[in-house]
Amino acid sequence: MSRMSFSLLASDAGARRGRLDFPRGEIQTPAFMPVGTYGSVKAMTPRDLHASGAQIILGNTFHLFLRPGLEVIAAHGGLHRFTGWNGPILTDSGGFQVFSLAHRRKISEQGVTFASPVNGSKVFLGARSALAHQGNDAALFGIVQGGTYPALRSRSAAELMQIGFDGYAVGGLAVGEPEAERNAMLEHTCPQLPADKPRYLMGVGRPEDIVEAVARGIDMFDCVMPTRNARNGHFFTRFGTVRIRNARYEHDLAPIDPQCTCYACASGFSRSYLRHLDRCNEILGSILGTIHNLHYYQELMAQIRAAIEAGRFAAFREDFYQRRSGVV
Amino acid sequence: MSRMSFSLLASDAGARRGRLDFPRGEIQTPAFMPVGTYGSVKAMTPRDLHASGAQIILGNTFHLFLRPGLEVIAAHGGLHRFTGWNGPILTDSGGFQVFSLAHRRKISEQGVTFASPVNGSKVFLGARSALAHQGNDAALFGIVQGGTYPALRSRSAAELMQIGFDGYAVGGLAVGEPEAERNAMLEHTCPQLPADKPRYLMGVGRPEDIVEAVARGIDMFDCVMPTRNARNGHFFTRFGTVRIRNARYEHDLAPIDPQCTCYACASGFSRSYLRHLDRCNEILGSILGTIHNLHYYQELMAQIRAAIEAGRFAAFREDFYQRRSGVV
Repeated sequence: MSRMSFSLLASDAGARRGRLDFPRGEIQTPAFMPVGTYGSVKAMTPRDLHASGAQIILGNTFHLFLRPGLEVIAAHGGLHRFTGWNGPILTDSGGFQVFSLAHRRKISEQGVTFASPVNGSKVFLGARSALAHQGNDAALFGIVQGGTYPALRSRSAAELMQIGFDGYAVGGLAVGEPEAERNAMLEHTCPQLPADKPRYLMGVGRPEDIVEAVARGIDMFDCVMPTRNARNGHFFTRFGTVRIRNARYEHDLAPIDPQCTCYACASGFSRSYLRHLDRCNEILGSILGTIHNLHYYQELMAQIRAAIEAGRFAAFREDFYQRRSGVV
Repeated sequence: MSRMSFSLLASDAGARRGRLDFPRGEIQTPAFMPVGTYGSVKAMTPRDLHASGAQIILGNTFHLFLRPGLEVIAAHGGLHRFTGWNGPILTDSGGFQVFSLAHRRKISEQGVTFASPVNGSKVFLGARSALAHQGNDAALFGIVQGGTYPALRSRSAAELMQIGFDGYAVGGLAVGEPEAERNAMLEHTCPQLPADKPRYLMGVGRPEDIVEAVARGIDMFDCVMPTRNARNGHFFTRFGTVRIRNARYEHDLAPIDPQCTCYACASGFSRSYLRHLDRCNEILGSILGTIHNLHYYQELMAQIRAAIEAGRFAAFREDFYQRRSGVV
C-alpha cells in the first residue's frame, strides 16, 4: 500500500489542479521536477533547489545503479541522506535507457541486459516492477507506451490499469515526434486514465510544451532543459529566450529578467557579466543560469496552478504565448 | 592620497595582527584573499564567499583587460558592480604574466608587450604604475622582486620605499623554490619593510606556508590552492588532507571534517557522496569542495589572528603541525 495520495482540487476545461501527499511533504500540481540523474541536479545545492520552489526531484535508477551502486546508497539509508535532498524523490526506472542506449542492450522476456556505459560490464534490469514492488510503500507509476499509435496507447493504458498503479506516466514522447502528434497522443490517452490518479508526462519539456500538456490533463513533468540549457547560456524568461552568447549582450547591464526574483536576477548580475562568465567557462555562469532557469520553470508552474484555480487557464495560456514571442 | 589605512594592533615575536580600513569595509590581518582571476572566484557565488568569511578578493588586471575588456567593466561603473562582490578587491598588476607567459611577451624600458593568449592580438602593459596612479585614491602596493638573491631584494625594497607605496608585496616567490629559501628571503626582506604598512606575500600558499610566512611578518596572502584543489577533489582539514578520489572514502558516511561548520560539512554531505560527485564530474562536487576549502582557509586565518592577539602564536603553530600531520 503506497503512502502517496492524490487529491484533485480543481479543474478548468482539461487542465487539472491537484495535490500529492507524501510522508516527506506535499506537492502542488501541475508540478515540474528538476532532473538529478546522478543524485545531483547539475550546478545546484539542495538549498538553492528549495529556494527555486522545487518540491520534488528526479533520480535515475539505471545511472545510480552503475554509480555509486545500490550498496553505497543503502549504506546511507537511502537516496535522501545520500544526496541531502529531504523532499520527495521520483526515480526513473531506467526504461528510457532501453531506448537511448539501444546499441548497448539486449531485451528478453525477463528484462533488459546492458553493457555498462561506465566500464562495459553486464547490467541486468528486471521488467517485473509491480511484482517486485509488493510490500514496498513507495508509490509506483505505470508507464503508458505505444509511440504515436492510438491503438497501442489504449492497449497499454488498459493493461496497466488492470495491474493498478499509484499514478500513470506517459512515456515514449518528447523523443523527436512533431508537436501535433504528441498533443494528439495526449488527447487520446489522458481521458482513458483514471481521474483520481496523477498523470506524468516524461521528459517534457519547453515551457510551451508544458502549457499544452497541462491543457490536456497532465499533472507532472520532468526535463533536463532548464538545467542543460543554462549551462549552454540559454536562459528562459517570460519575454522570450536570452541566448547569452549573442554579441548584443556584451554591454547589457540588465539582469536576465529585470522582473525576476531569483538570486541571479535580484542580485543584479548583468547579462554582460553572465556573457563574460560563459565565455570564460566559469562555473558561476552555470550556477547563476541554472538558478534562474529553474526559478523560471517553478514560477511558470505556480502561475499555471493559480490560473486553473481561478478558472482562467485559457486566458493565461493566451497571455503566456503573447509574452513569450517577444524579443529580449 | 589612498583611502586605505593600516593599523598594527598586536604582534607576537615576528607575527603581526593588524587591520586595513577601506571605504568598502575593514580587513582583519593576517588575511587570505581568494582568487577571482576572471572576476569570479571559481564555483562560488558572492553570497557563499561572504559566508566563508572572505573579506577581500583578488582580480587579475591582465586577464580582465583581455576579457571582458576595460570598456565593459567601465560600463558597469567598475569591478564591484560587474562581479557583484561589494567588499574590497585587490587587482594584480599582470606582473605574474610577465613570468608565466614568458613565451608570449617582449620587455622594453616602457613596459611589456604580450601576444594575447585569447586571440593573439598585441597587448601592451605599461610599467610606470606609481606615476599613472597619481590622483587615484585606490591603494597601490609596490612589489619587492629579486628572486632568492638577498642583495637584489634589498635594492628592490629600498627603491620601492623611496617611491613610497601604501603597502609592499613580496613577489617572485612560490614559483618552485625550496621552502627554506623562501623562508630565508622573508626573514631577509620583511625587517627592511616599514612596520606601518601592510605586507603581502603573493601566490602563497599551503596552510603550512601561510603559518610560516605569518611567523616572519607577512599580513596578506592569495592563492588558487583552496579553489583549484577543491575542483581536483583535494580537501583541506585541520587533521590533514582528504583526497576524495581515494577508494577508502567509497563507503565513508562522515562529512569532509565532522567538526567543520561550512555548508558542505554542516549539511552532512558524506565523503562517499563527494567522491561520487567527483567521479561523475558533477559541478556540485566543485561547489561543495570550494565552499569547504575556502571556509578552512578563512578559519585558519581567524585562528592565527586570535593566537597572535593572545600572545600564543608559537603554541598555535606547534599544535597546528601536530594536527595537520594526522591521517583522515
